[in-house]
Amino acid sequence: MFTSLYTSSDVVASTLTGLAVMSLAAALICFLGLSWSNERWRVPSALVGAACLVTSIYYAGAAGYWNSAGEASAGVRFSAWYSVHPLQVAAVYFFARTQGPVPVGVFWRLICAALLMVFGRWLGDASFFNPTLGALLSIAFWLYILGEMYFGAMAEAIRKSGRAVTLGYFWIRLLMTVGWAIYPILHFVDIVIGVGQSSGVIVLYSAFDIVNLIIPSLIVVAVAGQDRY
Amino acid sequence: MFTSLYTSSDVVASTLTGLAVMSLAAALICFLGLSWSNERWRVPSALVGAACLVTSIYYAGAAGYWNSAGEASAGVRFSAWYSVHPLQVAAVYFFARTQGPVPVGVFWRLICAALLMVFGRWLGDASFFNPTLGALLSIAFWLYILGEMYFGAMAEAIRKSGRAVTLGYFWIRLLMTVGWAIYPILHFVDIVIGVGQSSGVIVLYSAFDIVNLIIPSLIVVAVAGQDRY
Amino acid sequence: MFTSLYTSSDVVASTLTGLAVMSLAAALICFLGLSWSNERWRVPSALVGAACLVTSIYYAGAAGYWNSAGEASAGVRFSAWYSVHPLQVAAVYFFARTQGPVPVGVFWRLICAALLMVFGRWLGDASFFNPTLGALLSIAFWLYILGEMYFGAMAEAIRKSGRAVTLGYFWIRLLMTVGWAIYPILHFVDIVIGVGQSSGVIVLYSAFDIVNLIIPSLIVVAVAGQDRY
Amino acid sequence: MFTSLYTSSDVVASTLTGLAVMSLAAALICFLGLSWSNERWRVPSALVGAACLVTSIYYAGAAGYWNSAGEASAGVRFSAWYSVHPLQVAAVYFFARTQGPVPVGVFWRLICAALLMVFGRWLGDASFFNPTLGALLSIAFWLYILGEMYFGAMAEAIRKSGRAVTLGYFWIRLLMTVGWAIYPILHFVDIVIGVGQSSGVIVLYSAFDIVNLIIPSLIVVAVAGQDRY
Amino acid sequence: MFTSLYTSSDVVASTLTGLAVMSLAAALICFLGLSWSNERWRVPSALVGAACLVTSIYYAGAAGYWNSAGEASAGVRFSAWYSVHPLQVAAVYFFARTQGPVPVGVFWRLICAALLMVFGRWLGDASFFNPTLGALLSIAFWLYILGEMYFGAMAEAIRKSGRAVTLGYFWIRLLMTVGWAIYPILHFVDIVIGVGQSSGVIVLYSAFDIVNLIIPSLIVVAVAGQDRY
Repeated sequence: MFTSLYTSSDVVASTLTGLAVMSLAAALICFLGLSWSNERWRVPSALVGAACLVTSIYYAGAAGYWNSAGEASAGVRFSAWYSVHPLQVAAVYFFARTQGPVPVGVFWRLICAALLMVFGRWLGDASFFNPTLGALLSIAFWLYILGEMYFGAMAEAIRKSGRAVTLGYFWIRLLMTVGWAIYPILHFVDIVIGVGQSSGVIVLYSAFDIVNLIIPSLIVVAVAGQDRY
Repeated sequence: MFTSLYTSSDVVASTLTGLAVMSLAAALICFLGLSWSNERWRVPSALVGAACLVTSIYYAGAAGYWNSAGEASAGVRFSAWYSVHPLQVAAVYFFARTQGPVPVGVFWRLICAALLMVFGRWLGDASFFNPTLGALLSIAFWLYILGEMYFGAMAEAIRKSGRAVTLGYFWIRLLMTVGWAIYPILHFVDIVIGVGQSSGVIVLYSAFDIVNLIIPSLIVVAVAGQDRY
Repeated sequence: MFTSLYTSSDVVASTLTGLAVMSLAAALICFLGLSWSNERWRVPSALVGAACLVTSIYYAGAAGYWNSAGEASAGVRFSAWYSVHPLQVAAVYFFARTQGPVPVGVFWRLICAALLMVFGRWLGDASFFNPTLGALLSIAFWLYILGEMYFGAMAEAIRKSGRAVTLGYFWIRLLMTVGWAIYPILHFVDIVIGVGQSSGVIVLYSAFDIVNLIIPSLIVVAVAGQDRY
Repeated sequence: MFTSLYTSSDVVASTLTGLAVMSLAAALICFLGLSWSNERWRVPSALVGAACLVTSIYYAGAAGYWNSAGEASAGVRFSAWYSVHPLQVAAVYFFARTQGPVPVGVFWRLICAALLMVFGRWLGDASFFNPTLGALLSIAFWLYILGEMYFGAMAEAIRKSGRAVTLGYFWIRLLMTVGWAIYPILHFVDIVIGVGQSSGVIVLYSAFDIVNLIIPSLIVVAVAGQDRY
Repeated sequence: MFTSLYTSSDVVASTLTGLAVMSLAAALICFLGLSWSNERWRVPSALVGAACLVTSIYYAGAAGYWNSAGEASAGVRFSAWYSVHPLQVAAVYFFARTQGPVPVGVFWRLICAALLMVFGRWLGDASFFNPTLGALLSIAFWLYILGEMYFGAMAEAIRKSGRAVTLGYFWIRLLMTVGWAIYPILHFVDIVIGVGQSSGVIVLYSAFDIVNLIIPSLIVVAVAGQDRY
């Protein structure tokens, strides 16, 4: 009776669309944040804004693909990750850089690790070699990125900063530790339990994917806004 | 005879399109308002502009879906609400913040209440549990948001402000009290009387949805424009 | 022989597309005009720019609809008018406001009259009551708007201004008097003579609709550009 | 064998797409040029940018139409010309105006001549009267525009200017003399020889149409960039 | 089992989409870079940003074409190259120009060489004459561009500059030497070995095409950011 007006019968479609809309809103706020934040905060804000925008475009496409084909395309998800993960680690690097000099080598190592993290996973999933090996490779590069963030020159640069910046860095790092754990976890859930195509897994996976993206982005903009005085 | 040139035979389609166009115009005015308003007003203007833009995109999609499938998708409406309601309460928080310090905890409580308000409703409508329970949950969180706006730290911060700001806050709060009441009212109309799919209900519902969005957004921009001197 | 390269065989399609392109160009010029005009001229420029942009989107959609369905959708035209007419009278109000204080009540009365002007017409055309009654109602609200523009506080504020502003206001008012007359005229042509669906009427109607929009918009930008020194 | 990867088998489609891409790039450069050029150069830069953008949208549509229907729509081409030619002569007027006062009457005469030039041609091609008469009418208005550019007040204003401006004006005028000659020439080629629908004619015609647009636009931006010191 | 959620089964589609997303992100960063870089760096940043944006639009179209038709259209690729290669060499010219005067003749020679490089190749691939002759012609113009970059006035202007600029110029030149070599190499691979339509060749070719575009663009933005103090 009240199906078409009130009920969200297709959970996956409404989740994917909702996430696309959320990323778009987050991207708009990041870009508009450029107009009121301090000049040195513009690089990280621009990077997270670009990451949100391309994710929004990806999820809009994935929702359309789901509506027409009834399945979520993982190929396009990798397509987005190849841009989004490097953009995010670059944003973390420039976040730390606003507080003091960080060697440029850290930047290159982070970008390469982020690209290889996605590439390793992709090689496994595209059946070039064993998917579990790909996931393990991906975990190794993820751990390297976390190592740089916890013990590297970036943590050093942040340590001497004000409360807003330290807190922001703490939360971003936490999200990249706890939130990114969803990728290998769901991979093994899929391989071992074999529920990869169930709606629940797609919804959870996508929701975590977006939380991992939007929250750090908004933290960058919020810290940029407080560090301006 | 004069049907195709003058008459709007499909009331739902023309309403949805008209609302999409209106939200787009409102979003444009919010974004352009950023260029002439005081710096501290930029955050609330950006937030309501983002809310208007994502709503416009949603209604354009809903109009297209109506034209092709002959029904309004509620799933996508929830998709928009998940972004729009948090953006609106965040805009109210930053509106109050321009006039004085408001504890940041208020912000987090408002965002969570707005998300849970939509989530509770969605759980009911997606048949995870009884729809009426979902609507009641949604009402509870709505009342909490109203409580914060009437008796919380935001009302405190606004009280000492100039006439334009006080008046703007009064009207936004009134619209969130009276206008948002349409959501539970129409829900019960739908359950009890069972006219959820009739064109009239969709048109009324959509019109209120937009009034609840556009008017507060334009109030924010108007107050921002007057508070600049 | 030379049909497809040189000849415009479908007059309606090429007119609708051409008008969409013209409105887009006008909107671009209005928005870019924001970057070189004085701060107090930004509100009217933004309003006419938004009006041009939504009209452009409407006419692009109408051209597409004509191409696919072979008829012009009036529903969508009302959809655009609900936004465009209030935006235009708001622009006239803020145009006058740049020259001196105009009571804010004038603004609200103008917005309401513009909305009711479209609404009255729509009620008639959507067959809620007699179309001619709707057209007469629409004319009444149009005359009220003209009354405000000729004898109200806006004319007062403009009287003391420089030549560019006075001339601009004179032309905008003239276009809203003579140009807007096309709406009731063509309505009666359609009812009495019954040629509402002929291509000629659609072309003429659309052309006047655009002239009524683009010329005042460009006048606002031009006056804004001259009033900056 | 290597058809699909390397070869451009459909010359018309790839030409139309390539021209759309070029116009878009030119429009982007014109709009970005606004950010680094002197304030008084903003009007001509905005006008040529708008001309490039609407042309880009037209050619993208024409390429899509060619792909689906296998013919180039001239109706849409007129649709673009109605906006592009007036925008171009307006840009020339404001180009001259940056160097000294040019009577505003010149502006109105140029705009009317440009509109009538397209309108005359369109009347002939849409078979309202003889196509050759339409082409002759179009030539007459074109010659009038050239007369204004060679002997009118604009040439006067430019004569006293620096080298960059004089050179830029010289080249724009030359392109409007030599380049615009393609329109009547190809018209007579089509009527007399009757090869209007051949791919070669469409490609040549489109290429000249774009050269006539992009080169003067980039000249305006380049002169604006050099005249800023 | 886990195909649709995790695996990228269509390597070409996911590559083309991923490259479109990457170019879009690069274009966004170039355009946003305009807001924090020194005024004289705006021209090269704008040029590489425009190149990235049109490439992104091309690859999005190519991915859509692949999905619907199952083949990659080279015609559209040429369409993009006609704009991208001239934009890139123009960016290199203005890159050098930020460091000292470079004769404007160099600019014209570079633009002509870049256009002829694409045109020669296109003539061969569109079967106007032997494809290998077209490739050789293309190589000749490419070598001319490299000659200008290694021994011409641009190298002269760069030599006296700071470390960031010299290093950036070195890397851009290296990429245009080593990276652009992929075009003739893959051409001969295709002709001699005849594997032009295999997925691997399309993927490799596209990946190099993007690396040749994105890396120099980001180098321009990075150098612009460091040269601002």
